[in-house]
Amino acid sequence: MTKEQLIACHKRILPYIHKTPILTSRLVNELVGAELYFKCENFQKTGAYKMRGATNAIMQLTAAQKDKGVVTHSSGNFAQALSLAAQSLGVKATIIMPSNSPQVKKNAVIGYGGTILECEPTIEARQGLADHIVHTTGATFVHPSNDPEVILGQSTSCMELLEAYPDLDTVFCPVGGGGLIAGSALAAHYFGNNCKVFGGEPLEADDAYRSLLSGKIETNTSANTIADGLRTQLGTHNFPIIQKHVTEIIRVSETDIVQAMQFIWERMKIIIEPSSAVAFAAILKDKHKFENTKIGLIISGGNVDITRLPF
Amino acid sequence: MTKEQLIACHKRILPYIHKTPILTSRLVNELVGAELYFKCENFQKTGAYKMRGATNAIMQLTAAQKDKGVVTHSSGNFAQALSLAAQSLGVKATIIMPSNSPQVKKNAVIGYGGTILECEPTIEARQGLADHIVHTTGATFVHPSNDPEVILGQSTSCMELLEAYPDLDTVFCPVGGGGLIAGSALAAHYFGNNCKVFGGEPLEADDAYRSLLSGKIETNTSANTIADGLRTQLGTHNFPIIQKHVTEIIRVSETDIVQAMQFIWERMKIIIEPSSAVAFAAILKDKHKFENTKIGLIISGGNVDITRLPF
Repeated sequence: MTKEQLIACHKRILPYIHKTPILTSRLVNELVGAELYFKCENFQKTGAYKMRGATNAIMQLTAAQKDKGVVTHSSGNFAQALSLAAQSLGVKATIIMPSNSPQVKKNAVIGYGGTILECEPTIEARQGLADHIVHTTGATFVHPSNDPEVILGQSTSCMELLEAYPDLDTVFCPVGGGGLIAGSALAAHYFGNNCKVFGGEPLEADDAYRSLLSGKIETNTSANTIADGLRTQLGTHNFPIIQKHVTEIIRVSETDIVQAMQFIWERMKIIIEPSSAVAFAAILKDKHKFENTKIGLIISGGNVDITRLPF
Repeated sequence: MTKEQLIACHKRILPYIHKTPILTSRLVNELVGAELYFKCENFQKTGAYKMRGATNAIMQLTAAQKDKGVVTHSSGNFAQALSLAAQSLGVKATIIMPSNSPQVKKNAVIGYGGTILECEPTIEARQGLADHIVHTTGATFVHPSNDPEVILGQSTSCMELLEAYPDLDTVFCPVGGGGLIAGSALAAHYFGNNCKVFGGEPLEADDAYRSLLSGKIETNTSANTIADGLRTQLGTHNFPIIQKHVTEIIRVSETDIVQAMQFIWERMKIIIEPSSAVAFAAILKDKHKFENTKIGLIISGGNVDITRLPF
């Protein structure tokens, strides 16, 4: 993916997304001993950066493809993002969700105009149903993270961050399927001034960390983490980009995640989801390495059930 | 208080405060049927607009007065604000707090460099101790809301809001002691374009509402509201300004407050305290009156115990 592709993608999706604000906090800077710049995708439409990639993926379809709609499987932020992006672009979106998904998540998808199809909560069932929809309706399958157009879209958050602060030393992202960090790594490569990209990953779902060590994609046997957005499997499109452009992935414990989340809520007065706290927890864990540097941090989202908090 | 005094005050305190961001939300606008502009004092230093008035009050002291320090009685946001403002200006701050104040609030004051003196949780005890400190140390008493220099400082948030959006039709504030709404009313008078100011007040502590009706300052016999910042008594300096420049005070129930707070948390992804939700609840209550208008809203603060939420 070229620099020109990133620029064209950003220009393309800008009418459909928010250029999210970048917040700073004197208190947080004092604690970390560095200058932190929080790129607030929790304020993005649908409450997460996923809106960027979903919008780009749909916009890159042909008119004939758009007529037949899009389909994805997700019970999380990508489900809402694809629904709203499709609605904004006049395209039909079918969202395959496990039958045990919380009603609040189903309602969000419906609210954004998506059509839900329920399946058994297994990877085989959801992929089988997705394949069935693709074959019977001609809809285009859009993967939540393992898709070059989705990765391109996700790169635009880090692009905006570096546009505002071109001299960041590092950018931190959470790592799940790898779409955000792969996109951010491309943005840092093309628009940064020797800007290094770091990932934060839960110890409980550290497939990307282990994949970088072994040189091949590793899987999670379990993914028992509060960071629900990061339970997914690292993708084949994302991994080579991460291998090439990401400096390090730092793993954090569940306690680290909850403490980091609470700290941001209390000090920054913004609502971030556990997945976003993973990146901040990674900074805290190795903060001696980043003293007196300028750190960008992608706050990936703010979708959390505020009636069921871990603190 | 003149227009020139407001301008001079803003210039004076600006190095010591944050010029807070103004957020908007498409979803909130759709719900209300109007354009809302959220002036986020929850992102202010110490997490509340009180920092503005506290800073101005201390800066207006003579060098001799500054040498002898300041004293106030508050268990809430003004305690933290006066502590940090004093620390920033090299002045000693003594904070009189009821002995039953939560430890978390005491810790915050200590963290900002204030010295706590505890008293019995009665109005007589706290005023008696304040008088004692003033007489024995020569410190200057700074009231949390009923003080012209504090009111001037609080006006600067609405000034910034109108500087960014000069054509707001209305500005909404919560009403407790009346410092914020009196300051905002002055700012709207001098810098607005026929901008009307509305207050939101809990039904459970509606002294300002009743005072406007009767034409004299009324008291609360009880103040059993979750909006802890609004339990205080309307002040003598604030009331005449409110009488002259505030259009209406809208009262809201405790249920209205909690629902408004939850709505803002979920949709805006920002942490606001119950007192701030009161102003938003007031807009919701009478939203038909404000259809298709431009509404400014002072989000007064974000200091809330996130481990003890009402939802």
